[in-house]
Amino acid sequence: MSGPLVPSVRGIVDLSHPLDDGTPVYPGDPVARIEPATTIEEHGYNVLHVRMGSQTGTHVDAPFHFLEDGARIDELPLELFLGPAVVADLRGRAPRTPITWADLAPVADRLGPGRMLLLHTGWDAHWGTDAYFAHPYLDGDAAQRLVDAGVRTIGLDALSLDETVLDGESAGGFAAHLAVLGAGGVIVENLRNLSSVTSAEPVVSVLPLRLTGADGAPVRAVAFDVAG
Amino acid sequence: MSGPLVPSVRGIVDLSHPLDDGTPVYPGDPVARIEPATTIEEHGYNVLHVRMGSQTGTHVDAPFHFLEDGARIDELPLELFLGPAVVADLRGRAPRTPITWADLAPVADRLGPGRMLLLHTGWDAHWGTDAYFAHPYLDGDAAQRLVDAGVRTIGLDALSLDETVLDGESAGGFAAHLAVLGAGGVIVENLRNLSSVTSAEPVVSVLPLRLTGADGAPVRAVAFDVAG
Repeated sequence: MSGPLVPSVRGIVDLSHPLDDGTPVYPGDPVARIEPATTIEEHGYNVLHVRMGSQTGTHVDAPFHFLEDGARIDELPLELFLGPAVVADLRGRAPRTPITWADLAPVADRLGPGRMLLLHTGWDAHWGTDAYFAHPYLDGDAAQRLVDAGVRTIGLDALSLDETVLDGESAGGFAAHLAVLGAGGVIVENLRNLSSVTSAEPVVSVLPLRLTGADGAPVRAVAFDVAG
Repeated sequence: MSGPLVPSVRGIVDLSHPLDDGTPVYPGDPVARIEPATTIEEHGYNVLHVRMGSQTGTHVDAPFHFLEDGARIDELPLELFLGPAVVADLRGRAPRTPITWADLAPVADRLGPGRMLLLHTGWDAHWGTDAYFAHPYLDGDAAQRLVDAGVRTIGLDALSLDETVLDGESAGGFAAHLAVLGAGGVIVENLRNLSSVTSAEPVVSVLPLRLTGADGAPVRAVAFDVAG
């Protein structure tokens, strides 16, 4: 070796939920079903069959999720999925409460083009329980103001950027989705562990699987620090 | 905004093949089948059913792929999947030729703990054709020497790190897999586009989906530059 290695990446934090048969999904979406395809005993090596939806577990939405003419997940610039991020602390909210533009005031001066925004609701603590579906959500007006400020990647540690509608309830609408996706942006849902992101200047990776023509795709989301 | 944004990530290069029904797989492995689960016309939004294998398309192998007691893909340190990499130019080789330790001499002094090695065979040009299965492969002795040098992540732009065995052929063995996985390392297969990695100090991300207990997982692989 010619010298010490450059420590270009440090402090990687996993922001992804485990993906398995117990993964909760948005009402009506495909659930995950994972089972052996080959085994060491029979075939010499282990491989799995994996069935899931394009939006099962920690995943990214592309404009095509809601917009027939919107970009598919494999048509978007990779800069939307890998770059500097701001984490907004929005913990301690009651179930089904909107996150407003005023709630984002503490981070507003750090938002702009090329910077992701991650909404830290703490709702990942309810993963696997009924309470997970009663998450806080981003108000449509706040979503539009974020888009106006140049933000094109918004993520959160909850099931959906808009209120989740269960069977028999009145529709909550998809105003936040439509604002972000309508601007050519992307949405990251079912993040976890945002409390472990302690860096002042984290880089976040939410690079989705390259599913041809898809509305979205699962991702192994992480945060880390860089040193050039 | 309080000032100019820090350009912490630059020059992202996609190293992943498209994932769809046409994705070639290792003989006997599950193929990808992707079809609509919901549509904008019927349900208000697009979501897909996705069926595939744990090693379909661009993916990472964990030790459990070949070793019953080996680490699963969700048990490994994330540093194996995100960090500085060396790309070895091994283009122009005949079909089914081994890559030896001598072939790696040009990059040997840059290898070591914490640095990935990507074998650039150029075989991604044959993706989707029969020739894709007749790829160059890593000699078992070279794999062991790389492990001895501290390398724990080895990737290549071909179907398998070992020779691919088709029906009716004699077994080529899995010496390279066993050397890397036996040391607790990981293998990245079906990369593409390594010729676009022009940086002298690229960072590579091959963060696999967090599939519980799995032998491996698909990934959106990229290379990029960092500036701290």
